[in-house]
Amino acid sequence: MSEVIVANGLYGQAGQRIRHALGGQAVAVVTDENVARHHLKGLVAQLEQAGYRVTSRVLQPGEGSKSLDTYAGLLGFLHESGITRTDCVVALGGGVVGDVAAFAAATWLRGVKLAQVPTSLLAQVDSSVGGKAAIDLPQGKNLVGAFYPAGLTLVDPMLLRTLPGEQYRDGLAEVIKYGVIQDAALFDMIPYDESEEEDIVRRCVGIKQQVVAQDLYDRGERQLLNFGHTMGHALERLSGYTLPHGQAVAIGMALMARASHRMGCCTADTMGRVVNLIHLMGLPTATDQKPEVIHSALLGDKKRAGDTLTLVTLHVIGDCRLTPVSVDQAARWVRAGCAA
Amino acid sequence: MSEVIVANGLYGQAGQRIRHALGGQAVAVVTDENVARHHLKGLVAQLEQAGYRVTSRVLQPGEGSKSLDTYAGLLGFLHESGITRTDCVVALGGGVVGDVAAFAAATWLRGVKLAQVPTSLLAQVDSSVGGKAAIDLPQGKNLVGAFYPAGLTLVDPMLLRTLPGEQYRDGLAEVIKYGVIQDAALFDMIPYDESEEEDIVRRCVGIKQQVVAQDLYDRGERQLLNFGHTMGHALERLSGYTLPHGQAVAIGMALMARASHRMGCCTADTMGRVVNLIHLMGLPTATDQKPEVIHSALLGDKKRAGDTLTLVTLHVIGDCRLTPVSVDQAARWVRAGCAA
Repeated sequence: MSEVIVANGLYGQAGQRIRHALGGQAVAVVTDENVARHHLKGLVAQLEQAGYRVTSRVLQPGEGSKSLDTYAGLLGFLHESGITRTDCVVALGGGVVGDVAAFAAATWLRGVKLAQVPTSLLAQVDSSVGGKAAIDLPQGKNLVGAFYPAGLTLVDPMLLRTLPGEQYRDGLAEVIKYGVIQDAALFDMIPYDESEEEDIVRRCVGIKQQVVAQDLYDRGERQLLNFGHTMGHALERLSGYTLPHGQAVAIGMALMARASHRMGCCTADTMGRVVNLIHLMGLPTATDQKPEVIHSALLGDKKRAGDTLTLVTLHVIGDCRLTPVSVDQAARWVRAGCAA
Repeated sequence: MSEVIVANGLYGQAGQRIRHALGGQAVAVVTDENVARHHLKGLVAQLEQAGYRVTSRVLQPGEGSKSLDTYAGLLGFLHESGITRTDCVVALGGGVVGDVAAFAAATWLRGVKLAQVPTSLLAQVDSSVGGKAAIDLPQGKNLVGAFYPAGLTLVDPMLLRTLPGEQYRDGLAEVIKYGVIQDAALFDMIPYDESEEEDIVRRCVGIKQQVVAQDLYDRGERQLLNFGHTMGHALERLSGYTLPHGQAVAIGMALMARASHRMGCCTADTMGRVVNLIHLMGLPTATDQKPEVIHSALLGDKKRAGDTLTLVTLHVIGDCRLTPVSVDQAARWVRAGCAA
């Protein structure tokens, strides 16, 4: 059972919705300082009103909280909270909170109930849906984790009104990605205004759910969602994770669009439309990194299967394809993406 | 895909069998010092001969290695070993090695291939089969983990020839358990001699597989395997984990046999046969702990669902049943089990 609901104002029903869908007697809420300021008290009150015994843990904001240390701390918190297998963890926050809280929920007692209440655009359209939980190691991001879909994900786009502009833009890279890989009409709706936001978020979530339903464990079809991410992740690693995920994905998509054109997969017009929209939304489209450096960083990719990497190549807007290449061939794609 | 093979002499084919069943290019072997002395070189040679790039990590023997620290160390080892999603972790050892290596395999890159080569009786008949991976926290055993069945489990009873007698006896508690819960003929075969050992191990593995197939995630039927374990785990916790698991389970089974008789589930003869066989095999059948102390320790049980605990009650040999009781009712069962 894994339900995702998207609606403006949904947050006000979170307590009842969680009670109805997941049951149990205790809830452990995990959030971060920024989100806690706006939303924690309200959610705790709703959950208590729904009859739960509620505890909460507030993490430091930022990627640094996706660590083994934070994870160990959360396990201790779940123990103190007396969370049994029929009780719930609620992740209230962006991608970092969602990923680390979900990994704790996936592994505490070998799995307890989980609800996601995403508060960033990135988490709403991407990380809170599809069941990927993860933490980072010093050696790389998301190296450790589980596939553990939340029993309930409550997506309320109105929560995005408290989000800083820069963080919103970070999520826009994923919105553009959904358009490019699957939905030309969505691509054409960007840029959108506030009245269209709920519809945009719902379309993105729908695409994610549909792709994930075909391939939860990320062995095939799901890798489509990786458009711009293979090179994007390499750029994040190379920056020592100072480059925000959305900017890295934006550059990765621009590189793959250029490479796809130069390797004969798409027209110059298709490439141009993708690169221009990324730029129009205030996201970067190029990198100073040398192709050979990006290529070496690709070898650390989590999805590498032995000597093979799967690239997501662009054919027309709304149609991307999985293209397995050898580690050596990948070097040509990187060069083609980086060439001026 | 989750295959379990039981055969004397199987260990000699481990390299080829793993190659054939799991493929991949690299293998990371996890073992402990005691097992490494007898078997590591041989297995590494076999795996290299099968065409793998092989690395190995030797843990300290004992429950202390089922820690977050060891787990973190194994993740670093898997990174250094360059294990990708199509490569394998091989757990060569007893329950501790199997549990922590399986948890690392389950969570490294959100899951890589896993083979189990169990070397203790307990691991062969119980922990290597059924997909439970776990580590301990200071607050309790097996509190953190995953359900992650090994792709291949190779059970070679001849490996037990190098096992110290006390460790062998620890596994016998589980063998008796299978007889009591499901197989009266198996119960009657104990004590058995070396020529019957392969058959005994195969029967135990068969029962475990059959129960797990009905309920991998331990929500119902699988709890049958918990006969003697609910009280056994409480006794382990109370001893600060100095009481070996097999002895704790032996006492737990004797307590549940007595309680089942006194609560009207089974005859005095059935109770007597169970308690006597445990005693005959050199395992303990009583505890000095006070009933009220055992009862409080039960409340920390991982399988507790809110206020309900599921006890496994004895009716006749080969027929045990799941009996859900409230936390308060559980106190009566504990007193009935402890009464002289």
